[in-house]
Amino acid sequence: MSTLTTTDPRTGVRTDTDIQATSDAEVAEIVQRALGAAKEIEQRPRPWRADLLDALADALEERREDLVDTAAAETGLTSARLNGELTRTTYQLRLFGEAVRDGGFLEAAIDHAGETPMGPQPDVRRMLVPIGPVAVFGSSNFPFAFSVPGGDTASALAAGNPVIAKAHSAHPLTSRASFEALSEGARRAGAPDGTVGIVYGQAAGSKLVGHPGVAAVGFTGSLGAANHLRAVIEERERPIPFYGELQSVNPLIVAEAALAARGAEIAAGLAGSVTGSGGQLCTKPGIAFLPAGEAADAFAEHLVAAMGAADPGVLLNDRVLSSFREAERELGEAPGVSSLLGATGDGAGDGFSVAPRVLRVPAGELTPDHTVEAFGPLVLLVDYTDTSELLEALEAVPDSLTTTFHADPDDYALVSGLLPRISEAAGRIVFNGYPTGVRVSWAQHHGGPWPATNSFHTSVGITAMRRFLRPLAWQNAPAELLPAELRDDYRGIVRRVDGVLEVPTA
Amino acid sequence: MSTLTTTDPRTGVRTDTDIQATSDAEVAEIVQRALGAAKEIEQRPRPWRADLLDALADALEERREDLVDTAAAETGLTSARLNGELTRTTYQLRLFGEAVRDGGFLEAAIDHAGETPMGPQPDVRRMLVPIGPVAVFGSSNFPFAFSVPGGDTASALAAGNPVIAKAHSAHPLTSRASFEALSEGARRAGAPDGTVGIVYGQAAGSKLVGHPGVAAVGFTGSLGAANHLRAVIEERERPIPFYGELQSVNPLIVAEAALAARGAEIAAGLAGSVTGSGGQLCTKPGIAFLPAGEAADAFAEHLVAAMGAADPGVLLNDRVLSSFREAERELGEAPGVSSLLGATGDGAGDGFSVAPRVLRVPAGELTPDHTVEAFGPLVLLVDYTDTSELLEALEAVPDSLTTTFHADPDDYALVSGLLPRISEAAGRIVFNGYPTGVRVSWAQHHGGPWPATNSFHTSVGITAMRRFLRPLAWQNAPAELLPAELRDDYRGIVRRVDGVLEVPTA
Repeated sequence: MSTLTTTDPRTGVRTDTDIQATSDAEVAEIVQRALGAAKEIEQRPRPWRADLLDALADALEERREDLVDTAAAETGLTSARLNGELTRTTYQLRLFGEAVRDGGFLEAAIDHAGETPMGPQPDVRRMLVPIGPVAVFGSSNFPFAFSVPGGDTASALAAGNPVIAKAHSAHPLTSRASFEALSEGARRAGAPDGTVGIVYGQAAGSKLVGHPGVAAVGFTGSLGAANHLRAVIEERERPIPFYGELQSVNPLIVAEAALAARGAEIAAGLAGSVTGSGGQLCTKPGIAFLPAGEAADAFAEHLVAAMGAADPGVLLNDRVLSSFREAERELGEAPGVSSLLGATGDGAGDGFSVAPRVLRVPAGELTPDHTVEAFGPLVLLVDYTDTSELLEALEAVPDSLTTTFHADPDDYALVSGLLPRISEAAGRIVFNGYPTGVRVSWAQHHGGPWPATNSFHTSVGITAMRRFLRPLAWQNAPAELLPAELRDDYRGIVRRVDGVLEVPTA
Repeated sequence: MSTLTTTDPRTGVRTDTDIQATSDAEVAEIVQRALGAAKEIEQRPRPWRADLLDALADALEERREDLVDTAAAETGLTSARLNGELTRTTYQLRLFGEAVRDGGFLEAAIDHAGETPMGPQPDVRRMLVPIGPVAVFGSSNFPFAFSVPGGDTASALAAGNPVIAKAHSAHPLTSRASFEALSEGARRAGAPDGTVGIVYGQAAGSKLVGHPGVAAVGFTGSLGAANHLRAVIEERERPIPFYGELQSVNPLIVAEAALAARGAEIAAGLAGSVTGSGGQLCTKPGIAFLPAGEAADAFAEHLVAAMGAADPGVLLNDRVLSSFREAERELGEAPGVSSLLGATGDGAGDGFSVAPRVLRVPAGELTPDHTVEAFGPLVLLVDYTDTSELLEALEAVPDSLTTTFHADPDDYALVSGLLPRISEAAGRIVFNGYPTGVRVSWAQHHGGPWPATNSFHTSVGITAMRRFLRPLAWQNAPAELLPAELRDDYRGIVRRVDGVLEVPTA
């Protein structure tokens, strides 16, 4: 048995916790309990499941102060940011509760028996059902929103599946405190034992992913860690989906008219988006394209001033720090790059602190060497002389979670020409705003082409549930053996009946 | 360059065709054309895409006689069966056309900007967009329905993607004739060059799957061939989804009251389902569970009589024949198995002909050795003494596309007890019917847990399109830069607006 440690990013001091790594036997036991819970949850009506999500939100709220304090100590993030993140997390749980009550996510459809151009056909009914226990691997940068109580957990539970979280090594105490809150909420809601579980330690995480009882993995983190887990999945007898949210450069494109009209304002907004949370957001704009010229120079000056005045705080842990230092060095040394703010290694002091960086390069010199993700307060400005140069430079940018345009109506022709390419290369296209601060809502999509994610699904918003559901069809089933939602007389959810939309009646 | 051959299954005689294997350079050119077509198709309105699907159906209909004759010569399937299959294929294309006009598959959602419990939030809109060129690998047993013009092709095109089919080595002439019909239909509809493509030969198939321009693979066939292609995908820099429809044993469970009431009728239906199309259907019930006793003995006699009288015809090709012979031998030699009809090797004559087989084993002796898929006219009867023995025996059955119950109201308690387990182990649950003859409709689901398929999606029915679509979100986009379906004033499709269902207005 090994003991987990925790580190204060403000000092770099590492201390032992009282948490032991989970043994293989314990992992197996936890999965067994989850499998038992899965069977029981499936029998409960949807309103109960929605109440469970509300109860989890309540339990987290009740422990808000302790959770935020614990996370602040382990992550170096500010209390303001962590309070906001916890609010987002409980809001998300309740929103999924609404979606569960709504029931549209079941994608229920009924085709009655009858004569068709293909002859007489049987009655066929279909809806989505839960897939089974889901393993959740959260990220270091969102101890609440993408960790033990985050989006993967909320969407998997909403879909009707038990969840087993792997505690993050950079915030084990926060992970445990979050899990205890969830456990308490689940207990109060009368959830079966095993509805939520947690394992500690990397070996336990691998064991979990390899366990035959686990039906899917939700993952937010680095490509390296993802590849390790994907290799474990490859070894399984029965393959399971791995939903990975991995890395993203998030290009931001400023067009000419917008730059002329409000360059200083865009620069100030960009500075906030790049330095917020220490630049440690998967949606941080890491590269910004500007039409070369005097307005771009002025923009750069505004940006440097605003970023120089920002306090990026400390990075989350030593791995994030060393990755940032490496990216900072690589980008600084890439051909044609000039440094407008800071130098590699700046900001080093107690703990994992860094200073904001602004770099600049002409679009004609842009290569993939210039577009590595720097997870921290760094942005690379790229000056483009015309649309074709911009389009060519964009080829050096990896596909991302987001692409952002700052464009005024006079720029729409340019944007229109770029949109087909941008649509292929991003999961969300932002206009005249910033990609950080992902709205939790019905229409949200948080995902993107490889290497941003490895799936066609979102990890934020209501449709995140789709990852943890599978279709099941019933043919000529007696009404009493059908799920309530698929019986003829049920009218509580939207369904497609004989090809025609049937709206719920109140 | 190598020349493709074709074989008459009725004689086993192999002859050269005038088709050459596609070279690597040609594959690259075909993918390039598809990429060009993808950009153009995305700009066209949905009604055009629906018209394209209708035009493809028309073009196939026009060549019906030639297509059926060619396929009959290459597959040994009867003209009646092939005519039905072609009708199913054109019906399916038109049904997808209806779904494209309906537009519900876009899953459009709009969240307007406004105040929320999370503070002011931006406008976010989401819908599904095409993923890009899709490679389609069809099966030997459905030269139309799951081959060049089949379900994967229809759903990928309906989703707005170009398709590149790999011609099946067992029916290259049918593949070419089908492709020519599709090409002609596409041309008439004014589709861009590259909307449909075809490659010939195994090497070209691998090259296609490894090409960076290909966005997904739809596959129907053996686990072995699937594993080969999945290995090619693992080598790609950018991973892509592989939707494989692989193998299935399809257990059928007869309950006591149903057996007593209509054993002979069920036996006759089962015989038809096992021997139809030479037993070469992925949904063929390969194993049937009966409550042990006199009624089961009578059932077995009826089944043997009906199957003995059936003409299973010839198998599709030498690979199917050798697999069937091996499965027939393995099952015949497995512990406790008695043969009620035929012996290994029966039916051998000209070409790839076989004879129907009925085997029997007590449930207490059932192991995974008894549940290998025999792709051909074979069924294994299993006698169970009580529910717990039945449940235990079901553990030896691999998860399948379907599970079938024959049950009367007095049996519902038994069925109810089994349903949680069966729901986990199948994609479709059939009551008092047979799993063969998959209805093409909105509510259909054709898929199942591993090893039946490797994804949570269907390969038959309208939602098959979901495999070839990905979500894209727009944040604060000017109306003129949004797709028509996401503009405020558009009311032609169902959408979710601010969490509330908005039905289309006529």
